[in-house]
Amino acid sequence: MKIGFIGLGTMGVPMALNLLRAGHKVRVWNRSQGPLETLVAQGAESAATPAEIGAVDVVFSILADDKATREVIVDGGVLAALKPGAIHVNMATVSVQLAREFTTQHEARGIGYLAAPVLGRADVAAAGKLNILAAGKAELFDRVQPLLDVLGQKTWRFGERPEQANAVKLAANFMIASAIEAMGEAAALAQGHDVPGADFLEMITSTIFAAPVYKGYGGIIASQKYEPPGFKLVLGLKDARLALEAAEGARVPMPFASVIKDNFLDGIAHGDGNLDWAALARVAGRRAGQV
Amino acid sequence: MKIGFIGLGTMGVPMALNLLRAGHKVRVWNRSQGPLETLVAQGAESAATPAEIGAVDVVFSILADDKATREVIVDGGVLAALKPGAIHVNMATVSVQLAREFTTQHEARGIGYLAAPVLGRADVAAAGKLNILAAGKAELFDRVQPLLDVLGQKTWRFGERPEQANAVKLAANFMIASAIEAMGEAAALAQGHDVPGADFLEMITSTIFAAPVYKGYGGIIASQKYEPPGFKLVLGLKDARLALEAAEGARVPMPFASVIKDNFLDGIAHGDGNLDWAALARVAGRRAGQV
Amino acid sequence: MKIGFIGLGTMGVPMALNLLRAGHKVRVWNRSQGPLETLVAQGAESAATPAEIGAVDVVFSILADDKATREVIVDGGVLAALKPGAIHVNMATVSVQLAREFTTQHEARGIGYLAAPVLGRADVAAAGKLNILAAGKAELFDRVQPLLDVLGQKTWRFGERPEQANAVKLAANFMIASAIEAMGEAAALAQGHDVPGADFLEMITSTIFAAPVYKGYGGIIASQKYEPPGFKLVLGLKDARLALEAAEGARVPMPFASVIKDNFLDGIAHGDGNLDWAALARVAGRRAGQV
Amino acid sequence: MKIGFIGLGTMGVPMALNLLRAGHKVRVWNRSQGPLETLVAQGAESAATPAEIGAVDVVFSILADDKATREVIVDGGVLAALKPGAIHVNMATVSVQLAREFTTQHEARGIGYLAAPVLGRADVAAAGKLNILAAGKAELFDRVQPLLDVLGQKTWRFGERPEQANAVKLAANFMIASAIEAMGEAAALAQGHDVPGADFLEMITSTIFAAPVYKGYGGIIASQKYEPPGFKLVLGLKDARLALEAAEGARVPMPFASVIKDNFLDGIAHGDGNLDWAALARVAGRRAGQV
Repeated sequence: MKIGFIGLGTMGVPMALNLLRAGHKVRVWNRSQGPLETLVAQGAESAATPAEIGAVDVVFSILADDKATREVIVDGGVLAALKPGAIHVNMATVSVQLAREFTTQHEARGIGYLAAPVLGRADVAAAGKLNILAAGKAELFDRVQPLLDVLGQKTWRFGERPEQANAVKLAANFMIASAIEAMGEAAALAQGHDVPGADFLEMITSTIFAAPVYKGYGGIIASQKYEPPGFKLVLGLKDARLALEAAEGARVPMPFASVIKDNFLDGIAHGDGNLDWAALARVAGRRAGQV
Repeated sequence: MKIGFIGLGTMGVPMALNLLRAGHKVRVWNRSQGPLETLVAQGAESAATPAEIGAVDVVFSILADDKATREVIVDGGVLAALKPGAIHVNMATVSVQLAREFTTQHEARGIGYLAAPVLGRADVAAAGKLNILAAGKAELFDRVQPLLDVLGQKTWRFGERPEQANAVKLAANFMIASAIEAMGEAAALAQGHDVPGADFLEMITSTIFAAPVYKGYGGIIASQKYEPPGFKLVLGLKDARLALEAAEGARVPMPFASVIKDNFLDGIAHGDGNLDWAALARVAGRRAGQV
Repeated sequence: MKIGFIGLGTMGVPMALNLLRAGHKVRVWNRSQGPLETLVAQGAESAATPAEIGAVDVVFSILADDKATREVIVDGGVLAALKPGAIHVNMATVSVQLAREFTTQHEARGIGYLAAPVLGRADVAAAGKLNILAAGKAELFDRVQPLLDVLGQKTWRFGERPEQANAVKLAANFMIASAIEAMGEAAALAQGHDVPGADFLEMITSTIFAAPVYKGYGGIIASQKYEPPGFKLVLGLKDARLALEAAEGARVPMPFASVIKDNFLDGIAHGDGNLDWAALARVAGRRAGQV
Repeated sequence: MKIGFIGLGTMGVPMALNLLRAGHKVRVWNRSQGPLETLVAQGAESAATPAEIGAVDVVFSILADDKATREVIVDGGVLAALKPGAIHVNMATVSVQLAREFTTQHEARGIGYLAAPVLGRADVAAAGKLNILAAGKAELFDRVQPLLDVLGQKTWRFGERPEQANAVKLAANFMIASAIEAMGEAAALAQGHDVPGADFLEMITSTIFAAPVYKGYGGIIASQKYEPPGFKLVLGLKDARLALEAAEGARVPMPFASVIKDNFLDGIAHGDGNLDWAALARVAGRRAGQV
């Protein structure tokens, strides 16, 4: 089976490496040169343009956003180079709207389209332990499942329409942002009564909220180390917007998501857009006059 | 050391039992008779009125709310019966305002006042594994610490002013309500794209949100089993109001808490006030036309 | 008919003067001396203490808030000095809760209690053109109507329970705050596109929002002249809180009121509590990084 | 001067008629036939396709939304048919984003682009009394000002970038929606205290909110006559979304707009999308269990 892999960012590199290490032949493309060389050194073939990925059986892509995905897959000629019967597995966090467009566009060319965004950061990807949020036709997934099993510890299937996986991924990211916002407001409340936010956060993340998401972001908030960012606040804004768009399409009011989006904007307006998105907590503190 | 214990609800009974089992002599009072008898059968002395708790060295109380606490401790004569040098440990979730009033009232009589609300439900109390959120004068805490060590696995001290512990407790409960609301909105978003809310919740609470709070409330939401309530929605409203009052006193905007309070009201207006407070998720679903 | 008038603030002075000018004998009390002298110079009798208002037939009061009202009317002995059959007309903006308490307390002594808060500032009061928002027993209102007709251009009756008038007054103040917040956000949106907020506000308050509330507050926002305050931001917070409490009692979610309250807190946390409440617009601008 | 007019909806018909009556030669196009015939009967020339509007000096368009505007102006060939030096005056409520795109696209062809959305409904348009919210290059506006003076009572210029007028128009519509939401919440608060919402609304719109927007929408809410819609709730949602997008682009948090959007979704989810947008008040009432 010939495999293509497009997008060698912090997630793409370990994922593509895992496919190589599992013995697959992988043809890769990336906009910048460095990651390409890393992969080639490990046995990958390199494509000079997206279109040169060519007529592989399965192409994975994990690109930054809707815009980058459209530019590379459509304008860059990946879709045109695929043959009927091929499968495109899009693992990026993109909009529900893009998933719909791509489903239609791919089907019109006889190409299968699957959405498979993931939960987990680079270290989890490296360990092949991602949770894969999947939607698309079952028969297509059955064909790529062995490859997904290389990338992740579990593939969660949510339905036959690819957009469903994107809705699920956006819902998951919304829950993380909600956890951050809740910690930010709670810490501001504690601080407002002269209890150091860090003390409150240490307690709460050691007791009833002793989960990785809370420990991780709670630690960042407690220490106020928002740099270097694990995930930038501006990207948090993007995901909040995508969640709200997906909600609007399904007529679902999401007041927490609305609060989060407004607070991300507040953060960006105050120059914190390139900090880690845990800096939502700075917005809560600033509004209380504590920052 | 003579100990009094006032308020034998679902939390009070196992806590008082633990004190007895640790070999302490405990004098107890409760409004209703049943729990009193349970405790007497285990060796406690029973007081016929709050005032008859009498001149103990330390009195614990854990009553339903501000109103019940005022009625029993002040109007009921507990405070008047204590001698200077005694200590009152209030373990209930009460308002910051009540904590301030009580601190002043107790000090005026030479009685020590400590706030020590807890994290954990009845089973945790029975196991003596509560997390105790404590504030008040350190020398007073030092004196009662051996007793707190019987009741809880850890006492977290947050400052010298009792109200600080109440602010922390309200912040903690706010975080639980936020987790419920976030799950409710996220599940509604998933459901709006024809992904069963239960499927989404199973995934998210098995992966990045694999914490007891999420698993517990996520399970309730997924199965829609809001009865019998572990903690009633009307009590959730009360705690949200107390959190917002504490926030207002400290000039802390808490938009998530505001959303939660409005949604609790929506739930109550639709007849769900006596369901488990996880029924916040029903509000999210109803607003999306899914319930 | 013997009339008492308690509370000679910016509203009380012109109201009491109008009663005098209409030929009534008025006995007045006020905490500070200056306004008392003004009234005495116009023919009023002065009481040295609230209780000395004595056994009048009708006593009007318009005090700052719940606390001041309780202190003067109950603790100060006004209520005790009234005879059965007397009527107390409370024209202040107080809580629904206080209205309920007072209704019960007054009735227990055979004294009629009416709530009659007003719309209009000092100049409107001076002109006798207030709109009076009234609730209480119709037969009581019928007796005081000639006096109310001296004070206002119209008495709007909203029901037999005094608290109803307070709910209406709080709803009215909420609408003013909403108009201010809407202008603040809209001006920030315009400003964010390099349209001066003042230009936007001049247009909108000259066209579809050509109403006094918009012109008045729009002008303050446009010129950023938040001092001297017509109505302080901290008082706006108080009224927002009272509206939310009244809403909670009636199980009415009010998300706009929640936003407003959070924004008032933001303003106070940034030192704007003693500015005019139109400074809500500063909060909107500050959050957008424009202030 | 040869004039084109595209889009003969409820607003377009009276506007085009006014141009004809002022003695101008007007070439018109509309998707449906009826309005075209009305105009031709009054002396207009009819174009069979958008492109047949041809090489006029000035073309006005007022189409339903971004999508319709793109389809007709770009895909339909209007832009291609215009000659360098011509001016396109877009009077529709479209997105800031579309304004930017069109500005660039038009300039690339040497065609002037002006944004001139309006305040006022069909009767105001018929009377030539619209308020025109204008942005774009001053020298272009100077050329079309005599025509705008036929259509409106005043042209408010907000800047040299067309998008600025769209931001202003969205801010204005946001203010109307805010007024509706505020009335809905306030009426629900009154109703929650057994004061009929209609009584409250009559009072408030006769006193401090005696402005056309409040009287008009207040009357609809009071009588609950949401049909036939003057402006559909689904269009209200669209405008709220466009306002939030414009705000996001300028980094302006707009919590009121967020509440409004969520409430529009709630209304649509409950089947009220085709009612007048004043049905926002139904959402407020429904949430309080009053509907």
